[in-house]
Amino acid sequence: MFRRIALIATVAVGSVVAVAQAQEQTDPNVVARQSLMRLNAYNIGVLGSMAQGRMEYDAARASAAATSLYHLSLVDQSRMWPPGSDTSSIENTRALPALWDNMDDVMMRGMALRTAAEDMMNAAGTDLASLQGAIGALGASCGGCHRAYRQPD
Amino acid sequence: MFRRIALIATVAVGSVVAVAQAQEQTDPNVVARQSLMRLNAYNIGVLGSMAQGRMEYDAARASAAATSLYHLSLVDQSRMWPPGSDTSSIENTRALPALWDNMDDVMMRGMALRTAAEDMMNAAGTDLASLQGAIGALGASCGGCHRAYRQPD
Repeated sequence: MFRRIALIATVAVGSVVAVAQAQEQTDPNVVARQSLMRLNAYNIGVLGSMAQGRMEYDAARASAAATSLYHLSLVDQSRMWPPGSDTSSIENTRALPALWDNMDDVMMRGMALRTAAEDMMNAAGTDLASLQGAIGALGASCGGCHRAYRQPD
Repeated sequence: MFRRIALIATVAVGSVVAVAQAQEQTDPNVVARQSLMRLNAYNIGVLGSMAQGRMEYDAARASAAATSLYHLSLVDQSRMWPPGSDTSSIENTRALPALWDNMDDVMMRGMALRTAAEDMMNAAGTDLASLQGAIGALGASCGGCHRAYRQPD
């Protein structure tokens, strides 16, 4: 499972750079949500890499990444997903129209990310085993929403 | 002063979109810091606009923006400013080399932003006068660092 999660994290960071390179958004709300996703990936990347052993475990660094992720999960997104900003309507977004039809589910998934990030914040600085114990739920909270509401590459 | 602050906020948001359009960064650390700056500007823009009367005061919206800004100020930036990522060394950054020569000052300014954001979080939802009372210190904490360490447009 760790390999799968790490793969998700790697793909996420790769996608983030690709999105940044292709960035042509002018809607500040879309720029904001993509910026938030980038920062999420930036921090999850560290945790996923440590969980899978591709980066040496470092308690302080793991804790900083997890704490950052938790604070990012508390950033208000209420303006970031305006109607008409899905991938059928504008360029350079992979947000599927289904997202807007399932806002209750999206909100619930956002709360799942917040809970998973908080659990990771409380685990990441303890030791590698604790970090590994929290990575599954964290990866699942990202992947669940992406699979449902993000257009595949 | 409010006009000046609002102008700063407007210019900040404008710059953010310009940076997003010209985005060609591939260093994930630089992408991350620029993403964080964008999210700061996205939220400060709301507060500055309300302070100056260009956006109707809305307690919930002001509070959400200020709370977001506070959480963003707690995101770890320790990996975001690697040596060699200044404007003389890479494209598409306005970070001046002086930043790396004055890290203690930069850290102090970062703490000033955190304090100003916390004060704004405690003020923004009360009423417009309270928001206006907190905007000066917040704008100063942004502007102080930008004037010292960011290349002018």
